[in-house]
Amino acid sequence: MRKKVITFGDIMLRLSTPDYARIIQSTHFEATYGGGEANVAVSLAQLGVGAAHVTRFPDNELGKAATNLLRKYGVDTQHIVYGGDRIGIYFLETGASVRASKVIYDRSNSAFAGLEPDMIDWDAVFADADWFHWTGITPAISAGAAACCAKAIEAANRKGLTVSADINYRKNLWQYGKTAGEVMPELIAGCDVIVAGQGDAKDILGITPEGTNGDALASVFSQLMKRFPKVRKIVNTSRTSVSATHNTLSGMLWDGQEMLKTQTYEINPIVDRIGGGDAFIAGYIYGQLAYGNDQKALDFGVAASVLKHTIREDANLATVDEVEALLGGNTSGRLVR
Amino acid sequence: MRKKVITFGDIMLRLSTPDYARIIQSTHFEATYGGGEANVAVSLAQLGVGAAHVTRFPDNELGKAATNLLRKYGVDTQHIVYGGDRIGIYFLETGASVRASKVIYDRSNSAFAGLEPDMIDWDAVFADADWFHWTGITPAISAGAAACCAKAIEAANRKGLTVSADINYRKNLWQYGKTAGEVMPELIAGCDVIVAGQGDAKDILGITPEGTNGDALASVFSQLMKRFPKVRKIVNTSRTSVSATHNTLSGMLWDGQEMLKTQTYEINPIVDRIGGGDAFIAGYIYGQLAYGNDQKALDFGVAASVLKHTIREDANLATVDEVEALLGGNTSGRLVR
Amino acid sequence: MRKKVITFGDIMLRLSTPDYARIIQSTHFEATYGGGEANVAVSLAQLGVGAAHVTRFPDNELGKAATNLLRKYGVDTQHIVYGGDRIGIYFLETGASVRASKVIYDRSNSAFAGLEPDMIDWDAVFADADWFHWTGITPAISAGAAACCAKAIEAANRKGLTVSADINYRKNLWQYGKTAGEVMPELIAGCDVIVAGQGDAKDILGITPEGTNGDALASVFSQLMKRFPKVRKIVNTSRTSVSATHNTLSGMLWDGQEMLKTQTYEINPIVDRIGGGDAFIAGYIYGQLAYGNDQKALDFGVAASVLKHTIREDANLATVDEVEALLGGNTSGRLVR
Amino acid sequence: MRKKVITFGDIMLRLSTPDYARIIQSTHFEATYGGGEANVAVSLAQLGVGAAHVTRFPDNELGKAATNLLRKYGVDTQHIVYGGDRIGIYFLETGASVRASKVIYDRSNSAFAGLEPDMIDWDAVFADADWFHWTGITPAISAGAAACCAKAIEAANRKGLTVSADINYRKNLWQYGKTAGEVMPELIAGCDVIVAGQGDAKDILGITPEGTNGDALASVFSQLMKRFPKVRKIVNTSRTSVSATHNTLSGMLWDGQEMLKTQTYEINPIVDRIGGGDAFIAGYIYGQLAYGNDQKALDFGVAASVLKHTIREDANLATVDEVEALLGGNTSGRLVR
Amino acid sequence: MRKKVITFGDIMLRLSTPDYARIIQSTHFEATYGGGEANVAVSLAQLGVGAAHVTRFPDNELGKAATNLLRKYGVDTQHIVYGGDRIGIYFLETGASVRASKVIYDRSNSAFAGLEPDMIDWDAVFADADWFHWTGITPAISAGAAACCAKAIEAANRKGLTVSADINYRKNLWQYGKTAGEVMPELIAGCDVIVAGQGDAKDILGITPEGTNGDALASVFSQLMKRFPKVRKIVNTSRTSVSATHNTLSGMLWDGQEMLKTQTYEINPIVDRIGGGDAFIAGYIYGQLAYGNDQKALDFGVAASVLKHTIREDANLATVDEVEALLGGNTSGRLVR
Amino acid sequence: MRKKVITFGDIMLRLSTPDYARIIQSTHFEATYGGGEANVAVSLAQLGVGAAHVTRFPDNELGKAATNLLRKYGVDTQHIVYGGDRIGIYFLETGASVRASKVIYDRSNSAFAGLEPDMIDWDAVFADADWFHWTGITPAISAGAAACCAKAIEAANRKGLTVSADINYRKNLWQYGKTAGEVMPELIAGCDVIVAGQGDAKDILGITPEGTNGDALASVFSQLMKRFPKVRKIVNTSRTSVSATHNTLSGMLWDGQEMLKTQTYEINPIVDRIGGGDAFIAGYIYGQLAYGNDQKALDFGVAASVLKHTIREDANLATVDEVEALLGGNTSGRLVR
Repeated sequence: MRKKVITFGDIMLRLSTPDYARIIQSTHFEATYGGGEANVAVSLAQLGVGAAHVTRFPDNELGKAATNLLRKYGVDTQHIVYGGDRIGIYFLETGASVRASKVIYDRSNSAFAGLEPDMIDWDAVFADADWFHWTGITPAISAGAAACCAKAIEAANRKGLTVSADINYRKNLWQYGKTAGEVMPELIAGCDVIVAGQGDAKDILGITPEGTNGDALASVFSQLMKRFPKVRKIVNTSRTSVSATHNTLSGMLWDGQEMLKTQTYEINPIVDRIGGGDAFIAGYIYGQLAYGNDQKALDFGVAASVLKHTIREDANLATVDEVEALLGGNTSGRLVR
Repeated sequence: MRKKVITFGDIMLRLSTPDYARIIQSTHFEATYGGGEANVAVSLAQLGVGAAHVTRFPDNELGKAATNLLRKYGVDTQHIVYGGDRIGIYFLETGASVRASKVIYDRSNSAFAGLEPDMIDWDAVFADADWFHWTGITPAISAGAAACCAKAIEAANRKGLTVSADINYRKNLWQYGKTAGEVMPELIAGCDVIVAGQGDAKDILGITPEGTNGDALASVFSQLMKRFPKVRKIVNTSRTSVSATHNTLSGMLWDGQEMLKTQTYEINPIVDRIGGGDAFIAGYIYGQLAYGNDQKALDFGVAASVLKHTIREDANLATVDEVEALLGGNTSGRLVR
Repeated sequence: MRKKVITFGDIMLRLSTPDYARIIQSTHFEATYGGGEANVAVSLAQLGVGAAHVTRFPDNELGKAATNLLRKYGVDTQHIVYGGDRIGIYFLETGASVRASKVIYDRSNSAFAGLEPDMIDWDAVFADADWFHWTGITPAISAGAAACCAKAIEAANRKGLTVSADINYRKNLWQYGKTAGEVMPELIAGCDVIVAGQGDAKDILGITPEGTNGDALASVFSQLMKRFPKVRKIVNTSRTSVSATHNTLSGMLWDGQEMLKTQTYEINPIVDRIGGGDAFIAGYIYGQLAYGNDQKALDFGVAASVLKHTIREDANLATVDEVEALLGGNTSGRLVR
Repeated sequence: MRKKVITFGDIMLRLSTPDYARIIQSTHFEATYGGGEANVAVSLAQLGVGAAHVTRFPDNELGKAATNLLRKYGVDTQHIVYGGDRIGIYFLETGASVRASKVIYDRSNSAFAGLEPDMIDWDAVFADADWFHWTGITPAISAGAAACCAKAIEAANRKGLTVSADINYRKNLWQYGKTAGEVMPELIAGCDVIVAGQGDAKDILGITPEGTNGDALASVFSQLMKRFPKVRKIVNTSRTSVSATHNTLSGMLWDGQEMLKTQTYEINPIVDRIGGGDAFIAGYIYGQLAYGNDQKALDFGVAASVLKHTIREDANLATVDEVEALLGGNTSGRLVR
Repeated sequence: MRKKVITFGDIMLRLSTPDYARIIQSTHFEATYGGGEANVAVSLAQLGVGAAHVTRFPDNELGKAATNLLRKYGVDTQHIVYGGDRIGIYFLETGASVRASKVIYDRSNSAFAGLEPDMIDWDAVFADADWFHWTGITPAISAGAAACCAKAIEAANRKGLTVSADINYRKNLWQYGKTAGEVMPELIAGCDVIVAGQGDAKDILGITPEGTNGDALASVFSQLMKRFPKVRKIVNTSRTSVSATHNTLSGMLWDGQEMLKTQTYEINPIVDRIGGGDAFIAGYIYGQLAYGNDQKALDFGVAASVLKHTIREDANLATVDEVEALLGGNTSGRLVR
Repeated sequence: MRKKVITFGDIMLRLSTPDYARIIQSTHFEATYGGGEANVAVSLAQLGVGAAHVTRFPDNELGKAATNLLRKYGVDTQHIVYGGDRIGIYFLETGASVRASKVIYDRSNSAFAGLEPDMIDWDAVFADADWFHWTGITPAISAGAAACCAKAIEAANRKGLTVSADINYRKNLWQYGKTAGEVMPELIAGCDVIVAGQGDAKDILGITPEGTNGDALASVFSQLMKRFPKVRKIVNTSRTSVSATHNTLSGMLWDGQEMLKTQTYEINPIVDRIGGGDAFIAGYIYGQLAYGNDQKALDFGVAASVLKHTIREDANLATVDEVEALLGGNTSGRLVR
């Protein structure tokens, strides 16, 4: 039976300048819709996994267009709720070489921010689901969104789903009167798998490496696991930015005892940097569902993320065949006839 | 000496679908910036009149891009203030034939809405100015914007500027706790010229035609002048919508005694309907400044507005020569070599 | 409970030249996917009716892209089968004024033409459905497609669905060794509603008006009903082509006794002529499902078709509100703010 | 045997704004190459007539691109000479409705203007040709171009070709020290067919209608023929500009005794107005070569010109079938499947 | 006297996604026309060599557009025959970095596949020609195409032309009941020059390297020459794919005794990978015609191919000057003012 | 008080092919306006420095559009004069990898070339200015332009402005009867700062390195300073072209005694190479005005130039923050959220 993953989070209209133009030069914007969690859903659907996304959209053409994009890529949209005033927007100016890409967020007061806990019936959402994924962006948006997220995690745990989270910390969010440190611990406590980095651990939880010798990251991950005993795996990617259009990427997984690693990939040129992390966790989830093997899941996640960097828009549209070809060593981009 | 007109009002990022596409079909949006009052400033600058626009933009690339658009068309931007969170946005789906154009506004919480009365030094703004123009949109946005507008009108009157207003009523605005009926009368009282229609008079002031015979519009305009003795002219256009892409347009001016009228123009096809009213009042202001004659000013305003319908984006880019050619009877669009 | 309509037919990649360019001028083509029956499904989904489309696509990116387009607009694609060599293609050169639009078909040997009767389980397809719609194009494509269609009609009748067909005759199809006259009668016999014109009746069935006086169309429709007693309604539109970009449109319905008619609409300019007939029958089906009234269904169908002419791509994306506004007399295309 | 027509004249790079944009709005220009005489050659080649164009291009990528455009449409380019500094340019701002299209010429010092009489071997050019066509633009460009033109006409007459000219007068040209009145008469004297209007006759030759009654045009044409006895036919079109996007067109031919006329066509919308006159004379030449009948040639010329208005770029790309369909009464633009 | 090369082969409509978009993302395709042999003709025409291409196109606008593209670039199209149903199509998704480009072929039942041997009069085609070039794709398409190819080689040999072939093996073709091994040997036997690789030699002729020491390629080439004594040169390129957008390229030539080699070029980024091999053989042919020297011809071929990778569309548009600049060591891409 | 820099020079319409297309492939051109000196003004305005540009434009829409571009980016255009026939044009074909970019100039007879010395009132221009910048292109265009430049330098010196010049030598200019060697020395003599390279020194002044040992550049700079004692700094950049899309860049400054140097930056890919030198001197001027420190000014200039290579169109749109981030070591192009 096909596995089913539920994702929950805000989706924004993405308006990006074409051809490396600056925002102040641009007379038109390319438009798509994306968000960290929805990107995971779209990626999983391309990999053949059942995926449903839960969010709230305004009841206008923009909300309809965002829904349509999810449907187009095979994501189940039946649990999306409609209401509120607006869809959040982000503007993307794509950099090149030494010039960094730049993002302007205009996401306050979105329909999603207006979520109330009773707007979503999580038991219905999770009826035939196997996995629930959320990110640290959701509880940062509003008290209502945070409360919804807490209810979702509680329901997912009650129904026996695997729960994963990318706990990433965005300091420009968290404007509604609570801090990440007050809200996140309870939510992380309900997770089986988290994506986390040293910065997140410090900014959210105040966790820093112990001792001056040894592997700082392992130390942090180890403390995280001690604090959140339900978490069995902590995964992440390591990126080197040679330039805005040239990065290298590898991944690591801490299983409580050992730090698994992947090869390092060169990505040059990068076509679209956004959603690289979402493609990673989506690939990891696919890998766990398909292989049930940590190393394989990690390898699949990193290869999927690498491919994402060559694909326009937010979500990874790579197929299993394509990821496996890359894992099989075909990094040469030879023409497929 | 070149005359100088000051305009004051919000400017939005306009995102429109190309080639009559629906919003739910569109993968990109054409981007420009416009607003009722700024459109008047741009139009006047193309007609050779000095024009400065006063507004508030967020201090980011979008505010910079909007400033740049005004500068590009020769509008003085030195009195613009920067701050706040976002620029308002509107989405435009251009209709055709029986399908109407559709606008989705996303303008709440704009930098302009956050205006406070002391942010603008109106005495400095009006230092060498001859005319001040505002619209009913501004006081509808926020209490702060309304207070700024009141201060501007007061200063303009004190300094002897002519004051004009398009009093148009937008029922979806006015969300901050006051009604148009509470706020507008005091502002209109400071005007010399207003653009007003029967609907505006009723919705804002409760004025309806008196008597069952005679010219309803004259009755309404007459009552308006009685109530607001400083107002010496009331102007407006009359539009027949044959279809979304075919309209006719004429204009009228009430000078307290007589209703002046213009010829009726056919506009088919319409290239861009937005800003037709702004082009009219800009043309009228130009006409008064250049000719000091009601009929000429009215004729110029209507012809300018007609040309605007053939020009993309919000503001009228027609020159005096082009408007005069149309006034001279050249409606045939023969090639100019 | 939401009603559900099943449609069945071939879908082609549509490649059209932009901006009225000729094919020999064009350096790029706009790409979408459409087909007479699928257009009905998409239109119905926009009107809020449940819609599923059954077809066969090649198992490649083009088949996937076509599937995605249907999903995007809310059409259920779970019964689509994959296999065969290629997707059919049509090239569209959009005309203007006295220059007609031109279509080049390249649809032979499509995946759909390779359909075999046992590839589709119609009982499963019709499990929770209320209406089945097909067109005269399907049995014209291949013997296999015709056999599938026959099986579908048989199953639909067995399960008590309403069956409708646009019996239109395309003389360039019917290349597989059978004529329309040999194949169609048995299929039409299973229908409750048909879209038919005098040309179709003559070309397929040899039916011509009887008598030299009276309503020729009524005579033809009357004979059709005599020959096919299950058919209870015959509907059609009447189009006057003033030019490639200016048509008028009205509709008629024969209920066996009376010829109902609609008002005549002006459509000028036409944005996209393709799919006007599909929008009509989709609107008619919606009307019957929503109102159960012949005149209302006919009116809705014609108004929906009129709106389609203003919408790019093959399928009608108008909503119920938009069609009803047009039915309510708003043909003026006034801006909706 | 296929007939062959030689045309001679300057070709410019045409840079036009897309989508009715004004030049001051436009961030890109659509690029093509055209000129009155070359447009005739391209049109004739589409109609299946052999066509060669003679001109001079700079020896750079722009001259190469212009050559390529002619070759693409089947025009023989072997007699083109290369040298000089630049290709002439014209900028086109396409109008709509009451706003006229506008052309900015930047054609001084073109490679063509630098032509010297001995650069072209007209006997070789005319070796297997039947017809030579030139226009009044060529002798207006430079003394060298005028001298070349005189040599060409002399050679064409010597070799027994039919010679036609569109004598049109462009007052902004003629900058090299001679007037049209000094140069043109000798050239017109060598023609068999001319395209001329009342304005041209007056501006170039000072001919005005005689008598106050009767057909002014017939009077002018009659005087023209008296003055230039070799001229056997004078043709022209009559255009009514309802708006920049809506014209009507008809044609007339004076054979020395009678004024033949055509029906009047509505053209709405106009897609591209440029080259309408060139399409007319090309169609007329085709008609004379194909039918040898004045009325048929005139009808064909006007119908071809009407179709040109629906086709982008300078030259008419209509085929004989398309023109004949229009002549056959199909003005309705019905879809051709 | 200018040398003339004849090429023979199928041409497809190429539909490619812009800006690295995936096919499932793309709402439009860039359109051009290309084919292995025609690309050679276009390349040679840019290098100043006379070139004529022989093929069969459908008699519709697409066949006309393909003809026009060849004419545009100076290729003689007088021997093209028209008929059949369709033009073959290929869809190109351009990869980047680790994501490979992908091609979907839809070329069955093309007009070319319907070629019959008597449709082309090879004696007329070769009347004033010096060289004939074909590829292994042609005999793989249909029995008729293979028979035409055999007749062409026979006639070319009879008339004393140099015959070259790129024997490349495409396993997805060869669907008409014969294998490459059955058809190709007789055709190769008529060649003077072939482009061949180890894979082709094995797949078509079963030739593998002899001995375990020494140069495997030399061994294969040596056996090829033994089997086909008319073949005097075997050439090829060697490509390293660092990524889809970064390759290196060098070339080799076996003259029966010695393996000539070229320098290795870096190509980063690749603008358009398609047609790299065709540019190589075109450059080689140019080199032999211009210099009559193996090393120079090989060097020219490789440098031409390298430049092709930086040029959009199928065919190489580099000039002799540009190739020679690269050969002269200017690989730095410094701005040419 | 904000510093103000005056620049003086010709501005051309730049027409560039998109997406690395060749000129002979391109059906449209991207349009912008630029010139060496105006690029400096625009760059300085983005850096917050007051900037006014002096030039002459034709009094048409193209001159207006060019003015508008300067205004858009905050450059004062009040001293621009209008008249003459045309705006100069340059065509840009952007290269990639081993294929060089190519420029075709069409700038003769520009409005600027028609400048007469009395057309500009330099005392008014320099009223509140601090710095004057010109380049070697201006005196190369026409005797009038050279005379204007001489008057400007004289006035600038008289009013105590700092004068800088990029003395670059363009051998294709200088067509009006004087050589650079005759005209330039007097102009250079009035400068405080010059941008110069070994090639310029040799081509304009015949200065070559002395001695066979030691730093050739230092020798040349030293001789330059000896000859032009007012010159206190000579600056330049050193570029290595790895390919058309990959360069390295560093800078040097000779203060009469010492050669200051900067780090070397990798630029890969280059988005737009044009204006790199103008961005350098603009950055250097900013640096001198802001820091009054040679090394800092040089560093700032080089970093600004590096960023320019990643920005489309002629002028550098980088801000002070962006340049300082690069100077601070952030060359990695990490996403800025």
